[in-house]
Amino acid sequence: MGDPAGVGPEVTLAAIAKPSLKRRIQPILVGDLAHYRETARRSRRKIALESWRPGEEIPRGAVPVREVATLAARQRVAAKPTVAGGRAAHAAIVAAAGLVGEGVADALTTAPISKANLAAAGCGATGHTELLAELAGGANVRMMMIGDTLRVALVTTHLALVDVPAALDRRSVRDTILIAEAALRSQLGLRRPRIAVAGLNPHAGESGLYGREEIDTIKPAVAQARRRGLTVIGPIAADSAFPLARRGHFDAVVCMYHDQALAPFKLLHFSDGVNFTAGLPFVRTSPDHGTAYDIAGRGIADPTSMAAAITMAADCARRPGGSRRRPGR
Amino acid sequence: MGDPAGVGPEVTLAAIAKPSLKRRIQPILVGDLAHYRETARRSRRKIALESWRPGEEIPRGAVPVREVATLAARQRVAAKPTVAGGRAAHAAIVAAAGLVGEGVADALTTAPISKANLAAAGCGATGHTELLAELAGGANVRMMMIGDTLRVALVTTHLALVDVPAALDRRSVRDTILIAEAALRSQLGLRRPRIAVAGLNPHAGESGLYGREEIDTIKPAVAQARRRGLTVIGPIAADSAFPLARRGHFDAVVCMYHDQALAPFKLLHFSDGVNFTAGLPFVRTSPDHGTAYDIAGRGIADPTSMAAAITMAADCARRPGGSRRRPGR
Repeated sequence: MGDPAGVGPEVTLAAIAKPSLKRRIQPILVGDLAHYRETARRSRRKIALESWRPGEEIPRGAVPVREVATLAARQRVAAKPTVAGGRAAHAAIVAAAGLVGEGVADALTTAPISKANLAAAGCGATGHTELLAELAGGANVRMMMIGDTLRVALVTTHLALVDVPAALDRRSVRDTILIAEAALRSQLGLRRPRIAVAGLNPHAGESGLYGREEIDTIKPAVAQARRRGLTVIGPIAADSAFPLARRGHFDAVVCMYHDQALAPFKLLHFSDGVNFTAGLPFVRTSPDHGTAYDIAGRGIADPTSMAAAITMAADCARRPGGSRRRPGR
Repeated sequence: MGDPAGVGPEVTLAAIAKPSLKRRIQPILVGDLAHYRETARRSRRKIALESWRPGEEIPRGAVPVREVATLAARQRVAAKPTVAGGRAAHAAIVAAAGLVGEGVADALTTAPISKANLAAAGCGATGHTELLAELAGGANVRMMMIGDTLRVALVTTHLALVDVPAALDRRSVRDTILIAEAALRSQLGLRRPRIAVAGLNPHAGESGLYGREEIDTIKPAVAQARRRGLTVIGPIAADSAFPLARRGHFDAVVCMYHDQALAPFKLLHFSDGVNFTAGLPFVRTSPDHGTAYDIAGRGIADPTSMAAAITMAADCARRPGGSRRRPGR
């Protein structure tokens, strides 16, 4: 569901109504049934929604909703985040992670939450990725962004730029390479992923002239990954790595910080990019936009990224390493 | 000329031989005549080159070369940088800046140099931009990159990432906005440039959550520029600013550091981008590639960016604010 006051519920309903998605997946929504129904009504979308619990038959002709909260009417107003809404968003993540963790569902797509609102609701973790890693028993995860022409994996994410250099160490860079490579191979279906690792500094430091992180940290991390047999090169200057990746020379670029990855990525994938969590024992995707409170409830939110996120989750789940198999299936 | 051991001379000759450029400009080459002749012969390019000095008639049917060095044969070998070559490159810049400064030439396009080689030759300044600023009496200049779909201006350039936050202050950010705006207006011919200023931190700091530079430095600088009547907004998260600029919402993005500008820029303009120096009293452009020693002399260097740089210099020089008028012209 994500934050009920955000655009999550409306883009979810719009996405699962697309004929291309209807043919491919059986959705299970997780959240507040009344809110989903109201969202459908407001969007003038004829979509039957029925309460459902794990173990029950999936209802015919209706979309099942695993109920995790019963919000009051005033807690379901679009664009007006509430503490109860934050709590419901949190409960939805926990329940949904349970469904994929237990193999009841094959993959998880999350709708946008507000970190501030989650925190206000007393649900500690800073965001989806961190919370899911925790729920998966402390998995070592990395944020990736996936598009048709560019894929990126991030060593660090939401950190002031000044704190980035100190946050990099050989292990975190190496682990990002390994985690991204494993996800590209087993979940995204690339046989032998070719990975470029971006430098931190201009011209990748130009032999130490503009910073030593490439020499001291990134290069040794790349060497460690290569010794494990991975096809990985770097550090490469960021302004070379992205154009080369775009032209098909690499399958993904490992980036040192948020904007290094996101600015080029969003330039190519403004509304069709998918946020992918690498390192989880199940498939998890999400759209690459936020709650967009400013336009929530007005029926103008673009469901493209949500539809892409659900499609990718389904595709990944079909691959051998994509999803835990259900027992007896 | 740039570094005689780099690709500069060959891409210059290839560019000025293009019919589209021949029609538009009268080139004056500055450098070593023998080296240009040898480069032409090696490239199997039939191009007459003749020595020329300011004050003399431009030769008919030949390209004039202002000679500033006479290199020995072993100093003219492609891919083998020499100290004498570095000195010649330096002399060429000084002489060429003189030609435009005195109004003998209308605009300056520079071929790639090696900063290391220039330094080895004892020619202090760190690069073209700095040297030209010095030659123009200490002009306050900024590096810009110009392409058909994206234009960027840089507050800081060749600096380790860890040093970027401390290098930003209100004045440097504000001056970048003002210098870029003036160049866009007077030299690049935009009537009322709309400028976006990128934040330093992820999500432009998200109200101080990931760094305070947006609040303490960038926002006040933007406000100062707005008070002067400029159309400028920001700070905007880098991953929003570039996609919006690409879609035509802004004419340029002011960036805080090298890779913030160059990674998105080169993603869209890999071989047709032009490096433009804003703030000089004359027009100066250059291709956005380096000396490329590794391929120099093999006839495979792509002259696209050099041709684009010369074309842009010519176009800018034709505009009212583009060039100093020659006395009596």
